[in-house]
Amino acid sequence: MLRKWEVDIEKLYEGNRITVARAISLVENEAEGAKGFLKEIFPRTGRGYRIGITGPPGAGKSTITNRLAQFYRKQNLEVGIVAVDPTSPFTGGALLGDRVRMTDVEMDEGVFIRSMASRGSLGGLSKKASEATDVLDASGKDIIIMETVGVGQSELDVARAADTTVVVLVPESGDSIQAMKAGLMEIADFFVLNKADRAGAEQAVMSIKMILNFKKSDGWVPDVLKAIANEGIGTPEIAKKIAEHRAYLEQQGELARKRKARLEERIRELVADTLRIDFWTGERKAMLSSRIESLMQNRSTPYDLAQELIDDFRKQQLT
Amino acid sequence: MLRKWEVDIEKLYEGNRITVARAISLVENEAEGAKGFLKEIFPRTGRGYRIGITGPPGAGKSTITNRLAQFYRKQNLEVGIVAVDPTSPFTGGALLGDRVRMTDVEMDEGVFIRSMASRGSLGGLSKKASEATDVLDASGKDIIIMETVGVGQSELDVARAADTTVVVLVPESGDSIQAMKAGLMEIADFFVLNKADRAGAEQAVMSIKMILNFKKSDGWVPDVLKAIANEGIGTPEIAKKIAEHRAYLEQQGELARKRKARLEERIRELVADTLRIDFWTGERKAMLSSRIESLMQNRSTPYDLAQELIDDFRKQQLT
Repeated sequence: MLRKWEVDIEKLYEGNRITVARAISLVENEAEGAKGFLKEIFPRTGRGYRIGITGPPGAGKSTITNRLAQFYRKQNLEVGIVAVDPTSPFTGGALLGDRVRMTDVEMDEGVFIRSMASRGSLGGLSKKASEATDVLDASGKDIIIMETVGVGQSELDVARAADTTVVVLVPESGDSIQAMKAGLMEIADFFVLNKADRAGAEQAVMSIKMILNFKKSDGWVPDVLKAIANEGIGTPEIAKKIAEHRAYLEQQGELARKRKARLEERIRELVADTLRIDFWTGERKAMLSSRIESLMQNRSTPYDLAQELIDDFRKQQLT
Repeated sequence: MLRKWEVDIEKLYEGNRITVARAISLVENEAEGAKGFLKEIFPRTGRGYRIGITGPPGAGKSTITNRLAQFYRKQNLEVGIVAVDPTSPFTGGALLGDRVRMTDVEMDEGVFIRSMASRGSLGGLSKKASEATDVLDASGKDIIIMETVGVGQSELDVARAADTTVVVLVPESGDSIQAMKAGLMEIADFFVLNKADRAGAEQAVMSIKMILNFKKSDGWVPDVLKAIANEGIGTPEIAKKIAEHRAYLEQQGELARKRKARLEERIRELVADTLRIDFWTGERKAMLSSRIESLMQNRSTPYDLAQELIDDFRKQQLT
């Protein structure tokens, strides 16, 4: 039976590619029915294992994602990839570079790849990417890889959404202090030093290990693996380390705790979204516009105006 | 007269260093009275010019900030610096590296520097950094420089909070496509290619310029300057370009438009904060905790639970 959002749910559960693509578009465009759709598929999520691949631009994240996908396919596992790709408004879409590099896995029926571009709203993007991951999960993918470019909030979001987070660095990524500053140390379940045939690779590995030694740990200890992803060197070791981390999480009950925290965060976001939409009616937007001029002339303050708007909201709730 | 938040506002307006430091701590720690304090100083803000310095880790942002501060000091301008410094939980504070490098300006009474560490919450950090900027503005700083590490949401936030945004790159930052992917092209009022004595500098400048040519513009055209900040080369040119951009913004009425957009954003944030605090009472947090287990067993969905919580909130508003 075809639902009003034009996604055949049964076909989605069977993993039909066109249906999966359509379902992600529904979510990405926040089309009517998206929320109802996500609600309906929710009970089918939670089976796929979520891997986050992150690190600075140019580190080779796409290549490693590609190689990992090939590796899992040889084990007959179904793979979904969500590549979060902040792009320039000059081009208005995902860049050719990564697309080309992904071609060999794209031809494989067992791999579904979706690039999601930011168009300036990274915050909303991470939410949509997480929802796309749910769609892939419900469609029966065993492994879902989330790949993000960037250093900052987007990594933290990936780390929150992933079961295992892999941080990819290259010898040129700068010394270890820079890596620490970028906040990558705190989210990595392990590191991959890619392009390990380049100068400075050994030193980079040593620096990262030295810093990791400072981290007190009574459980999982992050490690540093070397790879030359262009040549496929290091892929089995990365997959093995992911499997080890997964086994650790499962034995310790950490996987359930991570999923619980993820659900709580999702609920908090849903609440915030609903409250925001309820609040910013056309009337209240107009009120903001008309009052902002007196703010510009320092005759009022943002704090007064926010309070005025909130008082109006509370009054409305009472009527 | 000393207020209850222990910040002597008159001393703040006189630029007293200890008072400024205390006021920023008040804001950073979200201590009691912080909001009232920000409300009180608001009418004294809007005079300082806000410069954002951003770019990938290791590009030399601190050094350029340092040099610019020295340059403005020679013109007898008062300078405030907010360095947003995402750090690792391993160290629990700002890293030594930058602190040392900043020493020569730190000794200068006319420069006030504050490092703000993220401790895992970049979102809240950009808000606090923006409030610290207001404090510096109210304290009479003519120029306020906001420096951030990272590629992603934090840059967008800096760009929103700054009047002029300078993006610092180095020849090793990767090819121009990587820079575009990092979203830096869309926020830069101009670029600085630092470490311009290194191999690949000319090519990097050309690549950025080529991409900038694609950008249709009927006003300000972003440019690429070269610098060797360690040796102070390029600093006057950067300051001159900032002054040109400022003049452009003022002539076009863009400065007022930027400040208006900033105030609107601030009000939206204040509203969202207030609603969040109103919503997440102890009772509702307990409700979330008690219901989340049935979610874990797929007997409910995040959408149902969010709705249940919101219904409860609406009911409470009616009583």
